[in-house]
Amino acid sequence: MTFDIAEHFRDDLPEAPGQWQSSPEFSFVGGHNDPANIPFSGLSEALVNVLRREGQNLAFYNLGGSPLGYEPLREFVISQLGARAGMTGGPDQVLMVSGSLQALDLVNEAMLSAGDTVLIEQATYGGMLSRLNRLGVTYVGIELDDGGIDLGHLRSMLEDLASQGVSPKYLYTIPTVQNPTGSVMPLERRRALLDLAREYSLPIFEDECYADLTWGCERPPSLRALDGDGGQVIYCGSFSKSVAPSLRLGYVIADDHVIRQLLALKTDAGTGSLEQLALAEYCPSNFESHVERLTDALKTKSDAMVDAVRSEFGPDVTVEAPMGGIYVWLTFPEGTDTASFSSAAASAGIEFNPGAEWSTDPGWGKRRLRLCFGAHSVEDIRAGVAALATVYGEHLGGS
Amino acid sequence: MTFDIAEHFRDDLPEAPGQWQSSPEFSFVGGHNDPANIPFSGLSEALVNVLRREGQNLAFYNLGGSPLGYEPLREFVISQLGARAGMTGGPDQVLMVSGSLQALDLVNEAMLSAGDTVLIEQATYGGMLSRLNRLGVTYVGIELDDGGIDLGHLRSMLEDLASQGVSPKYLYTIPTVQNPTGSVMPLERRRALLDLAREYSLPIFEDECYADLTWGCERPPSLRALDGDGGQVIYCGSFSKSVAPSLRLGYVIADDHVIRQLLALKTDAGTGSLEQLALAEYCPSNFESHVERLTDALKTKSDAMVDAVRSEFGPDVTVEAPMGGIYVWLTFPEGTDTASFSSAAASAGIEFNPGAEWSTDPGWGKRRLRLCFGAHSVEDIRAGVAALATVYGEHLGGS
Repeated sequence: MTFDIAEHFRDDLPEAPGQWQSSPEFSFVGGHNDPANIPFSGLSEALVNVLRREGQNLAFYNLGGSPLGYEPLREFVISQLGARAGMTGGPDQVLMVSGSLQALDLVNEAMLSAGDTVLIEQATYGGMLSRLNRLGVTYVGIELDDGGIDLGHLRSMLEDLASQGVSPKYLYTIPTVQNPTGSVMPLERRRALLDLAREYSLPIFEDECYADLTWGCERPPSLRALDGDGGQVIYCGSFSKSVAPSLRLGYVIADDHVIRQLLALKTDAGTGSLEQLALAEYCPSNFESHVERLTDALKTKSDAMVDAVRSEFGPDVTVEAPMGGIYVWLTFPEGTDTASFSSAAASAGIEFNPGAEWSTDPGWGKRRLRLCFGAHSVEDIRAGVAALATVYGEHLGGS
Repeated sequence: MTFDIAEHFRDDLPEAPGQWQSSPEFSFVGGHNDPANIPFSGLSEALVNVLRREGQNLAFYNLGGSPLGYEPLREFVISQLGARAGMTGGPDQVLMVSGSLQALDLVNEAMLSAGDTVLIEQATYGGMLSRLNRLGVTYVGIELDDGGIDLGHLRSMLEDLASQGVSPKYLYTIPTVQNPTGSVMPLERRRALLDLAREYSLPIFEDECYADLTWGCERPPSLRALDGDGGQVIYCGSFSKSVAPSLRLGYVIADDHVIRQLLALKTDAGTGSLEQLALAEYCPSNFESHVERLTDALKTKSDAMVDAVRSEFGPDVTVEAPMGGIYVWLTFPEGTDTASFSSAAASAGIEFNPGAEWSTDPGWGKRRLRLCFGAHSVEDIRAGVAALATVYGEHLGGS
């Protein structure tokens, strides 16, 4: 090679990954799902039917329809959320996106500039934190309890920021099956949160991408549903968790003019049509029963993981049974740094998310970690947690 | 509504589109393709087969494999380009992306900052110009003739910039079925372009997204193929034009470490798997024969459009028969502004791309326009061109 184009790249890029390696035996990271509950025959049958009917429309960008996405799918999304989360509205309030990560990017691009401040749950999705870091945005962590955001702490942070003349651009929250804590914010707290947001003119960015997988309580109405015509909330969700992560399909729901402003930033010529067609055809008759089977299977795995953590780690390590989803959140004794035994764990074939990477304050997060169970059998969950407890024990012994 | 979240948006966003309207009768814009040549039964059959075999892998991000994309598809891409465009290399030099627009975004994000300068063909893809405008990047237009980039002009621009101490970040070129002119750069000019790029340490960003649809000559080796191990070229291509635009699948091809650096910027958790699986299963046995049928059909439409333009507009309006693709490029007499009759055309049910939006210098481009013919029947092409000639005649009469 006589020339290296990478030397002409910007010097502020994130580090390039190494060669890809396949996952180890006990890979308890990533939003993977239960292979036994992927409805691939149903999706396949749905595609055959819909392509027979509408296959020629693949000749057109957006199937010749609205750039918001395939209308029958947008109709399903809003009606499903009407039934499950109290959402109102119509298909023009839905923008189909290529996974809810694109929703995060579009909303961030619309709202944030370097130097801005946002509010965010103290333990949250690591991919949002890395996005905010890349954008040069300051985030203020809000304390969580077993019902989600601590509103007293939120109010005091809002007062603090106001006294410094800072208007936070939004509060990013995952109220239903919080990631990583697995909590669900109760109805009354949702109403109180909206009141507080109105008082401070604080936009809310609500991410419910795990909410279809709720089993520990009845799923409450979303914040956007409770807000009614209030205009305070941009909502996003996903089919990655309820159907399959390898499909890249999510959605943003907001007022019409807000959706159209986000659409102006979506310059990708549309979201993949095969996936939209497959889901639009499959979901109306099958989504409910599929999600019921899936959540049953996930609850069994979750129970197995919580039991295994309690029996293998003993009382020093605490874990709450999540109210849904595909992960549990472990808290270790004061002074622990879970990242410090992640390479020993990797050598034993175990991967986990060190809590510092999922926390606004790495010092607070470092005694915590997240374990994902969606893709593993109950046997592997037990064996993997036991192996992790061994690694942790050796770490304690050696430290 | 008591609150308007859009008032909290940045104030430098592109204008939001209005409510979506369906296309008029003679919509000669957009990269739509021939509905009669969409292989939807083949894709459907391919999906049934591949999902029966690998459907459970939808449970995993990236189907449990490399984030570069589904390996059998990356292997097909590189071997197909080996046969058709002289490309060498292996699947680790291929990054599957969600349409070649994502390729533009990733390369731009890796290479460009506001205030940078790039070189670009004087008539080029409008979506690239709008991207560069959004990024605050200066572009210098390079003159074109019927073999593509005029190398004398390129050298003089490189000298000019060097004398001002400016190193352009890249040259963006569409050498094969140039958009919008439809030209194909001959082999010898490709070699000379590479020599010039080496002399000036100029990275080349080669976009061959229409190259599979070449019919006017033998498809020459790509610049990246001719560069061999030189490291000078990042290449992108797409299945949007060769199979279906509604599938969002493109690819970037570059040296391994360059691909991995681009991958670090691709934070979308992967490109849609159904579309990758369908193409990986369909293409090895069917791509060649499908593309042959498609190009035959497109050549017939192209000939019809060129004939119609010549007979309806007469000698004042010039058009070259394109060497492939789905568009023709018309040049009107000095003093014409094609944008000035676009709303009269719209009233007659005709849409076209005014040349100013497809040109680095709108003053140069305004007497030109682009007409896309891929999605229309020969009858509609004739009727639409006749209707456009009428609008133009009335415009001349009225001006």
